[in-house]
Amino acid sequence: MADQTHCPKQQCSGKLWGGRFAAQTAASVESFTESISYDWRLYRHDIMGSKAHAKMLAKQGLISADERDAIIAGLSEIEQEIREGRFQFRVELEDIHMNIEKALTDKVGAAGEKLHTARSRNDQVALDIRLYLRDEAVCLDQLLADVQRGFVRQARANFGAVMPGYTHMQRAQPVLLAHHLLAYVEMFGRDRERLADCLKRLNVLPLGAAALAGTGLPIDREFVAKELGFPTVSANSMDTTADRDFALEFLFCLTVVQLHLSRMAEEFVLWSSKEFGFLKIGDKYCTGSSIMPQKKNPDIPELIRGKSGRVTGSLMAMLMTMKGLPMTYNRDMQEDKEQLFDALDTVKASLSITAELLANSSFACDRMREATHGGFMTATDLADYLVKKNLPFRQAHRVVGEIVALCQQRGLELDELPLTELRQFSTLIDDDVFAVLSAEGSVNSRVSAGGTAGARVAEALARAEQQLGIA
Amino acid sequence: MADQTHCPKQQCSGKLWGGRFAAQTAASVESFTESISYDWRLYRHDIMGSKAHAKMLAKQGLISADERDAIIAGLSEIEQEIREGRFQFRVELEDIHMNIEKALTDKVGAAGEKLHTARSRNDQVALDIRLYLRDEAVCLDQLLADVQRGFVRQARANFGAVMPGYTHMQRAQPVLLAHHLLAYVEMFGRDRERLADCLKRLNVLPLGAAALAGTGLPIDREFVAKELGFPTVSANSMDTTADRDFALEFLFCLTVVQLHLSRMAEEFVLWSSKEFGFLKIGDKYCTGSSIMPQKKNPDIPELIRGKSGRVTGSLMAMLMTMKGLPMTYNRDMQEDKEQLFDALDTVKASLSITAELLANSSFACDRMREATHGGFMTATDLADYLVKKNLPFRQAHRVVGEIVALCQQRGLELDELPLTELRQFSTLIDDDVFAVLSAEGSVNSRVSAGGTAGARVAEALARAEQQLGIA
Amino acid sequence: MADQTHCPKQQCSGKLWGGRFAAQTAASVESFTESISYDWRLYRHDIMGSKAHAKMLAKQGLISADERDAIIAGLSEIEQEIREGRFQFRVELEDIHMNIEKALTDKVGAAGEKLHTARSRNDQVALDIRLYLRDEAVCLDQLLADVQRGFVRQARANFGAVMPGYTHMQRAQPVLLAHHLLAYVEMFGRDRERLADCLKRLNVLPLGAAALAGTGLPIDREFVAKELGFPTVSANSMDTTADRDFALEFLFCLTVVQLHLSRMAEEFVLWSSKEFGFLKIGDKYCTGSSIMPQKKNPDIPELIRGKSGRVTGSLMAMLMTMKGLPMTYNRDMQEDKEQLFDALDTVKASLSITAELLANSSFACDRMREATHGGFMTATDLADYLVKKNLPFRQAHRVVGEIVALCQQRGLELDELPLTELRQFSTLIDDDVFAVLSAEGSVNSRVSAGGTAGARVAEALARAEQQLGIA
Amino acid sequence: MADQTHCPKQQCSGKLWGGRFAAQTAASVESFTESISYDWRLYRHDIMGSKAHAKMLAKQGLISADERDAIIAGLSEIEQEIREGRFQFRVELEDIHMNIEKALTDKVGAAGEKLHTARSRNDQVALDIRLYLRDEAVCLDQLLADVQRGFVRQARANFGAVMPGYTHMQRAQPVLLAHHLLAYVEMFGRDRERLADCLKRLNVLPLGAAALAGTGLPIDREFVAKELGFPTVSANSMDTTADRDFALEFLFCLTVVQLHLSRMAEEFVLWSSKEFGFLKIGDKYCTGSSIMPQKKNPDIPELIRGKSGRVTGSLMAMLMTMKGLPMTYNRDMQEDKEQLFDALDTVKASLSITAELLANSSFACDRMREATHGGFMTATDLADYLVKKNLPFRQAHRVVGEIVALCQQRGLELDELPLTELRQFSTLIDDDVFAVLSAEGSVNSRVSAGGTAGARVAEALARAEQQLGIA
Repeated sequence: MADQTHCPKQQCSGKLWGGRFAAQTAASVESFTESISYDWRLYRHDIMGSKAHAKMLAKQGLISADERDAIIAGLSEIEQEIREGRFQFRVELEDIHMNIEKALTDKVGAAGEKLHTARSRNDQVALDIRLYLRDEAVCLDQLLADVQRGFVRQARANFGAVMPGYTHMQRAQPVLLAHHLLAYVEMFGRDRERLADCLKRLNVLPLGAAALAGTGLPIDREFVAKELGFPTVSANSMDTTADRDFALEFLFCLTVVQLHLSRMAEEFVLWSSKEFGFLKIGDKYCTGSSIMPQKKNPDIPELIRGKSGRVTGSLMAMLMTMKGLPMTYNRDMQEDKEQLFDALDTVKASLSITAELLANSSFACDRMREATHGGFMTATDLADYLVKKNLPFRQAHRVVGEIVALCQQRGLELDELPLTELRQFSTLIDDDVFAVLSAEGSVNSRVSAGGTAGARVAEALARAEQQLGIA
Repeated sequence: MADQTHCPKQQCSGKLWGGRFAAQTAASVESFTESISYDWRLYRHDIMGSKAHAKMLAKQGLISADERDAIIAGLSEIEQEIREGRFQFRVELEDIHMNIEKALTDKVGAAGEKLHTARSRNDQVALDIRLYLRDEAVCLDQLLADVQRGFVRQARANFGAVMPGYTHMQRAQPVLLAHHLLAYVEMFGRDRERLADCLKRLNVLPLGAAALAGTGLPIDREFVAKELGFPTVSANSMDTTADRDFALEFLFCLTVVQLHLSRMAEEFVLWSSKEFGFLKIGDKYCTGSSIMPQKKNPDIPELIRGKSGRVTGSLMAMLMTMKGLPMTYNRDMQEDKEQLFDALDTVKASLSITAELLANSSFACDRMREATHGGFMTATDLADYLVKKNLPFRQAHRVVGEIVALCQQRGLELDELPLTELRQFSTLIDDDVFAVLSAEGSVNSRVSAGGTAGARVAEALARAEQQLGIA
Repeated sequence: MADQTHCPKQQCSGKLWGGRFAAQTAASVESFTESISYDWRLYRHDIMGSKAHAKMLAKQGLISADERDAIIAGLSEIEQEIREGRFQFRVELEDIHMNIEKALTDKVGAAGEKLHTARSRNDQVALDIRLYLRDEAVCLDQLLADVQRGFVRQARANFGAVMPGYTHMQRAQPVLLAHHLLAYVEMFGRDRERLADCLKRLNVLPLGAAALAGTGLPIDREFVAKELGFPTVSANSMDTTADRDFALEFLFCLTVVQLHLSRMAEEFVLWSSKEFGFLKIGDKYCTGSSIMPQKKNPDIPELIRGKSGRVTGSLMAMLMTMKGLPMTYNRDMQEDKEQLFDALDTVKASLSITAELLANSSFACDRMREATHGGFMTATDLADYLVKKNLPFRQAHRVVGEIVALCQQRGLELDELPLTELRQFSTLIDDDVFAVLSAEGSVNSRVSAGGTAGARVAEALARAEQQLGIA
Repeated sequence: MADQTHCPKQQCSGKLWGGRFAAQTAASVESFTESISYDWRLYRHDIMGSKAHAKMLAKQGLISADERDAIIAGLSEIEQEIREGRFQFRVELEDIHMNIEKALTDKVGAAGEKLHTARSRNDQVALDIRLYLRDEAVCLDQLLADVQRGFVRQARANFGAVMPGYTHMQRAQPVLLAHHLLAYVEMFGRDRERLADCLKRLNVLPLGAAALAGTGLPIDREFVAKELGFPTVSANSMDTTADRDFALEFLFCLTVVQLHLSRMAEEFVLWSSKEFGFLKIGDKYCTGSSIMPQKKNPDIPELIRGKSGRVTGSLMAMLMTMKGLPMTYNRDMQEDKEQLFDALDTVKASLSITAELLANSSFACDRMREATHGGFMTATDLADYLVKKNLPFRQAHRVVGEIVALCQQRGLELDELPLTELRQFSTLIDDDVFAVLSAEGSVNSRVSAGGTAGARVAEALARAEQQLGIA
């Protein structure tokens, strides 16, 4: 029936939406507004969504079965062309949606011109990003698990090694290195949970909101949702096209991951220093200096730490971009993709290299153990010893504080002060005190749930190994 | 037995931790490091935690039943004194924990000195904040529900009113005002879900991690957890004292709430303008100008919009503060409280005033309806009309684009062009076209799930009323 | 003499710094740490700096004149190869510095191996960025001036047109459109000044700081400074290699520019709306909708507005990255370049398209003029009229407030109320009052310095035209 | 003449702008919109500005000399009342401007009602903040100078002490501690320059812009500028009331100061660790642990470091708040004050305590000196030694790299390898090599401008002492 219809002269603009425009888009405008240079990344998900949409259109009688099949075959071809680098992207077609639609129409004719029936780029792009992030969430979860495994393996390999636990960067109480390493397993575990929660709000079908108001064409959103594995469809078409919460929440999840990595990185940098000497990063994972021949630098943790600014910057960017935008879609929202892509690339690369780094580093357990001497790190144990003999804790704390002051004055450690002198501070102190003053004694006494005692850490380690599928 | 113990001379520092110190803390240091000027807010939760801790100590035989009772009674007195403004906070006691402990000891003597047994401020402050935020989360959820109710009531009151739906701030398609208002109900609904998810990670007992390594004293963390209503206890003592994820995630939740409010605020400001004229905010909710006697300004939405920067700033602050902190507790983390308090105050005040604003504003439905004329807002309907007659959508889009261009040239609306002229563009157009070109016709045609058709919106509204307990 | 020296076997790492390393860098590490994929942009400035360095080395007798000439010729060749796209960048050589040095040595042999004498990448990269930003500052200044010219030309073209001036998005007092446009000329003028101030701190020679401590080789930093046009050399070698203030300050300058653009963009979006109808952006500078055939969207200002988040994000990223870095160079600082490049690209593209947009937009002066009626915008004039008759301002304000309330009740404008009625409020009101109640009368009365009266604006416009070289 | 004027009934709103309002402002609105709880801080500057304004009004004949004198006397009284805590601030009067104006009118009657002639709160608040920040800039400059003096005094006191210079947290080359300390003097010096530049844009009179358009009353802005010491008056009344660049730029200056402090703080924390042991902070400037009796924590530098997030958060907040605000004044801008006040308080307190900290800390020069042994920190010196003997630098770098590798294998330092072995790597090495391999030899060789040689540092120190007025 198309012949019954006045065939519009080639639009001067060459755009798929150019009907009402009297002048061609300026080249500078095309270049300023295009997104194809980065949103091509969404091609697989754009095609996946279009196929589901076409199936639904056919099921609802909006296109024929033949048209559906032509569309699906054409899209498959296009996907392959893009994957193999044979597809010619065109800036004047603005974005991945239009590039694919145009190529499809070139391939299959009028059927291609029917694909955009009952949808808009406003709901289409929301669909693409949601599909894309859903896949990325799986990938991130795996990378996080890999990093957890890296920590767990080191904890197993170094089980039993003691080191100083720090607060305020001051030696505080001796702990097991394995306990310290498992703290990171907890952090990344929370990251995985947070991501899983984010996924709940991400995993909602936006398609069918159309431009902003829904459509009068007889579509079946539930069908599309089932095709694409979405448990629910979005409830309000205006909210659907206006919403970028999923991007913000995803960026936040990424930010916290990188923040956790920055803390680990700080420790790795410190521990690689001559002053600490707790960690040896393999030569393959360090770089040298262009001027100082002796240098071996912990570049990887430094970069990871530095990149926490970058990911946070992406979150801030997107929060600010969304501020004060009235309903519904505004072009400002196009900024979401580059921030998401960059943050994802950064976090994935950082996680991946962290897993390698963990596998290629070794801990100087002797040096760590030495560091547990000195610094009166068992002073709390001495106080608890007095508490067990019924001295109120606050008094015990004061007594030990004074013993420490004396030791410091004399240049002695706690276990070097003779019993008679100790008893000058409290007659509650007896021979058995020396057992609590050693690093191992201290560590193994801390059997409270979540504590650093070997027994507790062994349980935690076994639990982690099981959860992470480590034989 | 205390007499057997050397009673330390009054520490020059007067601090509860002063045993090892040779010099008194400088006044400037006290003022720079104190947190009592803001963390006094945690007093109820600090006391709640201490009572549970005391019960556990008694149960475990670390203090006597009498000591427990004295502690609990003393704490209750202190709580009342603080609530009634009779408590004397002291800066030199640094924080809420020490202020309360000292007052307790003044009241009940040695029993008070036993309260801090087997705990540290490192796990205590984590407990206090978690308890505090848990309560605040409930409060926020209620405020969010109030705001949702405000939108729902206006949607009900104005049900049937049509208005322009906008994309890019351009009139796009006619929608129901009720549909627009319900979009906000969705947003704030997501905020509530996000907060509930955040709560899962918040609702974990940190107490018992002690300084960082757990304790050798025979505590029972599960008992404390049950007392305080925590479903789980934290798994790793080092992570427990190093972690502020819960603060970050809470701040993020707050930020997104305020961001949503900023979008609503932008619309309220625009709609209050002479140019839009869609909204009348009650005189009680506006302010005037010191110089221009005619002015009535939408200050409240402006401030709400502006405050989205403030809450985002708090999130940024805390993310940056946590960057690169090595294990475990570092004093930097003290910065969490003021950011949380300020963000909470801001968001709660904004939600609360928004609920009032909604109840004290009225929509100019006539003006909105007028605005649906002009702007060719039913052009998509015309295209869909052609699609239903089997013209491929992309061709239909072009045809309508050309019709619009002609109308614009002639200064006509779509429904003012005679059928004969319309048919010049496509013979598929018939008499029945005019039904789809009216605002109401357009709105009511959009019956897709989540669409703006009256039937759909009525369902959504009823659902919302039910969920929100509106009769 | 090289033959007297043990020729090191090809380093397994293939790196220029590989002497002490026992294992080759992992490919994943190369890819994680490389910067050549983006810092190739610095090639012109890297070469410029190396040439000046070589001249100095020769002058100081550290290399021969022949070696200098070979180096300079080789560098010129490399520059041409890069410019013409013939240069093969190698990721395993990490960055632009090593890529160029290696290529130079391949070309000119041992002389190339002497180029890095008395310098380090730590001072070299600081030099490159400073040189690069110095050039970019000039470019930015010109773009800012172009945008200023765009505003000035529109101000000239529309001189005399009146419009509502807004506060709180409410019509406040009538102003000249030209006055409004010149407000932006002021903003961008401040941006130019701020950039010029930033340049003072940027324009300092870092080269010669070497790795961090200076060098024992007899270099002449003043000579290099003169060669490269730096007014001063940096004073402390450690600060020199640790410092990225110049990057932060540059990013801040960019952020404020984009913030100013976001305010203009907001107005352009609003003014393009049907409700305002103040601005017509040329078809070439708008885009359409994939679904709604009638749409013409102000995408460019929307994107400009949205990108203010992006540039701010870059600033935040860099601030966070620099937080807490100990002396001197840390690899984290490598993150500076991508943030700078992206922010620069964004701001430059936004300024450039803004200049075009201004040249391709037209103001609907009739519509603006109409909008000055209604809204009681001359109420302040009426109050000032009473003040001139010696009524205290605060009383005058109240009187006029009441008149406005009455008018509103009756649906009248101020100049529609009969004199007799006006005199009910104050007998100070006479026949001459109506002259002050018109928009033009109001505008032209505001002759205070910086005010909107035609005379004042004409002066300001002439001044701007002269400063910006507009005939 | 007031009797000729209808005396408006007491406004139901009780506001000074209430004439047109039919209903009283809601209490919740007053509390949400008020700023008096924090902008009372501006009272001195508000009064200063009002006095200058009154003088101008009198000079221009807009008020009488008597009225002027009454106003000035009344304002002086109010200032004293506020200073002495006797002034009753009222929330329903919203802000400092209205509180003072109302109190003035209560004191001096109709003259007080004339004070607001030809001005608006829009230009008044801009004036107040500019005056306030101008004073604060002076204060900040002095605090920055104090901190510089603290570093200079320590540099003088420890002149000659050597320590490891670090890059990537790895020992790189030996430097003078004094050189390291003077690096901070440079940083804070740039901060002072940046602030001085910011002041240029701050130091512009906004008063006279009135609401947004200037005024028709015959004011003299130049007179007011001279009274208040402003070199210039603002050029465009709309820009004047819309502008908050000065607040943003001030916040940025503060942010960079705190960032510099965070770097120093990181070093102080590290240096206070057992592992480094380079710094002893006086007991008065440390705090202890509630549980661990031996702890002495560097809380002050930790808090300073943490607060860099806070100040950056304020900058972020204000940038986001200003995003996309249309001309001219919008209520969002009220958010500027709290961010400025908090950032100022934070930075000033941090600077002040830093100056104290510097005066109360001592460097463990012996420990630092020891740390220069080990780590092959003179490897670059060896390479330079070879360069001086004409070996190309890149070859020298490789040779030394190999020597380092051998030393490491054998557990030797560079100066412990016998000459014969050294000569196996290069016959260019002679007896004189050992002079360059000592820390002092290395340090003192680096005589390049800005280098760490004693001679250079002595010059820099003397220059700094002179500039900072240290005898």
